[in-house]
Amino acid sequence: MIPTREIIQEAGNRIAPFVHRTPVLSSRLLDDISGAQLFFKCENFQKMGAFKMRGAINAIQQLTEKERNAGVVTHSSGNFGQALALAANNLGVTAYIVVPSSAPAVKIEAVKAYGGKVVISEPTLEGREREASKIVAEKGAVFVHSSNDLNVIVGQGTAAMEMLQDQPDLDYLFSPVGGGGLIAGTALAARYFGQGCKVIGGEPFGVDDAYRSLKSGKIEVNITTNTVADGLKTQLGDINFPIIKALVSEIIRVEEPEIISAMMLIWERMKIVIEPSSAVPFAALLREKERFKNKKIGIILSGGNVDLLKLPF
Amino acid sequence: MIPTREIIQEAGNRIAPFVHRTPVLSSRLLDDISGAQLFFKCENFQKMGAFKMRGAINAIQQLTEKERNAGVVTHSSGNFGQALALAANNLGVTAYIVVPSSAPAVKIEAVKAYGGKVVISEPTLEGREREASKIVAEKGAVFVHSSNDLNVIVGQGTAAMEMLQDQPDLDYLFSPVGGGGLIAGTALAARYFGQGCKVIGGEPFGVDDAYRSLKSGKIEVNITTNTVADGLKTQLGDINFPIIKALVSEIIRVEEPEIISAMMLIWERMKIVIEPSSAVPFAALLREKERFKNKKIGIILSGGNVDLLKLPF
Repeated sequence: MIPTREIIQEAGNRIAPFVHRTPVLSSRLLDDISGAQLFFKCENFQKMGAFKMRGAINAIQQLTEKERNAGVVTHSSGNFGQALALAANNLGVTAYIVVPSSAPAVKIEAVKAYGGKVVISEPTLEGREREASKIVAEKGAVFVHSSNDLNVIVGQGTAAMEMLQDQPDLDYLFSPVGGGGLIAGTALAARYFGQGCKVIGGEPFGVDDAYRSLKSGKIEVNITTNTVADGLKTQLGDINFPIIKALVSEIIRVEEPEIISAMMLIWERMKIVIEPSSAVPFAALLREKERFKNKKIGIILSGGNVDLLKLPF
Repeated sequence: MIPTREIIQEAGNRIAPFVHRTPVLSSRLLDDISGAQLFFKCENFQKMGAFKMRGAINAIQQLTEKERNAGVVTHSSGNFGQALALAANNLGVTAYIVVPSSAPAVKIEAVKAYGGKVVISEPTLEGREREASKIVAEKGAVFVHSSNDLNVIVGQGTAAMEMLQDQPDLDYLFSPVGGGGLIAGTALAARYFGQGCKVIGGEPFGVDDAYRSLKSGKIEVNITTNTVADGLKTQLGDINFPIIKALVSEIIRVEEPEIISAMMLIWERMKIVIEPSSAVPFAALLREKERFKNKKIGIILSGGNVDLLKLPF
């Protein structure tokens, strides 16, 4: 079940015409602050502003001609909905994006701007799933999950693969943990392309389902969704959790003020715009920086889609 | 009096160990919005966060051993004070930075952090000049003006030189106009390294001294300093004005909401942090975009030093 080295390499080649090979940036000032040597993989510069584009492209590319003709469907009001809309548009496929009625108008407009067909659902998970199932049944569209899908996981893993091609001797790779697709892909890439590179997740205390899942050995859920890192509220799935359990070393939890302060540091010192979720792994490193002194550390900056009129600072 | 092609080339080589060769970025979305093909020279990624580092390094490198031993002095509460402090520090020279007592504490701390000796003056131009003259007299330090100094102008021109090395066939180069050092250096570089590349300045209506100076043929002053583009409040000088008069095609003025909206567009679409002054040339282009359709246009993003807690939007 676990994707091989070759599968990730092939995905990298296959998605290349549709994604950016994002730059890896460093900052002497942030090295000084952390005491480590940091390499930031800038997926905030990725098409549509987040790594999600990688998995979305890869998932659609695996479909048969017949499946492509019927289209794809997902439920997401966040980056994955936009990514699937844009990826489908690039590949000439119809994408139905189920969006809860509670979603901000700006997100709905973004999906439309990328060419997606927006379907409004009730604002519950059940409501969204029901609407998505209806589209699968009626249109024959293929459901693509934002994180619990092997092709999506493999696509997300290409970011870490590229990073390790640029910096093969990283000691650690830090990734945010939300639905688990990015960190599962990152862990696979670290295993195949790293030289003993350990993968560490960063997760807000308020939505620490992955931390608790690794402790208990089974998928735990979040009771609250109380965090500025709105990309990290989702829970792990039965496809990515086994990979995470096998290959992720640990998860470090962070407080909300730590996320905001890490986010501001990156904006101020690196002059780049990242979303709160992207600041979480850097916040995790800073929280326990004594343990990582002088290590070579890769950090995945997962995305840069923020509402400038609703910044958390 | 006007620096030659060779002088700018030599400056580029001389300052290279102390500055970044900043990237030139493009954005299909901003191309679509403007109708032109845009290339952004990202001096917001420059050391200390602005192009000013180039001129500061170049000016200190021209000093004799004896002058270096006595140190340098300038009066500036903005980017140039920080740039001269860091440049001097890199070259083992003492820098006295005269800062008005009205300057925010964060700016004073920044100068100190870069190794500059802060000297507080009365908050008037006369007060600052008096304090600077005292240091020249007492310490034998060399006064370096932030914009009205040939070595500074030449140093600033290396940004446009690099850009034209990357994109030799630009039709236009857009630069902000503040004290005139950047646009004068840019105009020299466009003349020597461009292929008929025209230079256009962007200036806020509230501080349109350069626009009026080009109309009247003599240096005009600003009555008000009413703009979010706080780097552009200063006036032209007798050294840079003749260069600007000879080589700058025109200056386009912009309203404050246009500056803020151009700034937000760059943050949101390019995911990079720029200061309001840096958004002015892009705002100028957008204001008159019909005239520049399908042209290849270079835009100098002059810096990225903003106070995230006091954003103008």
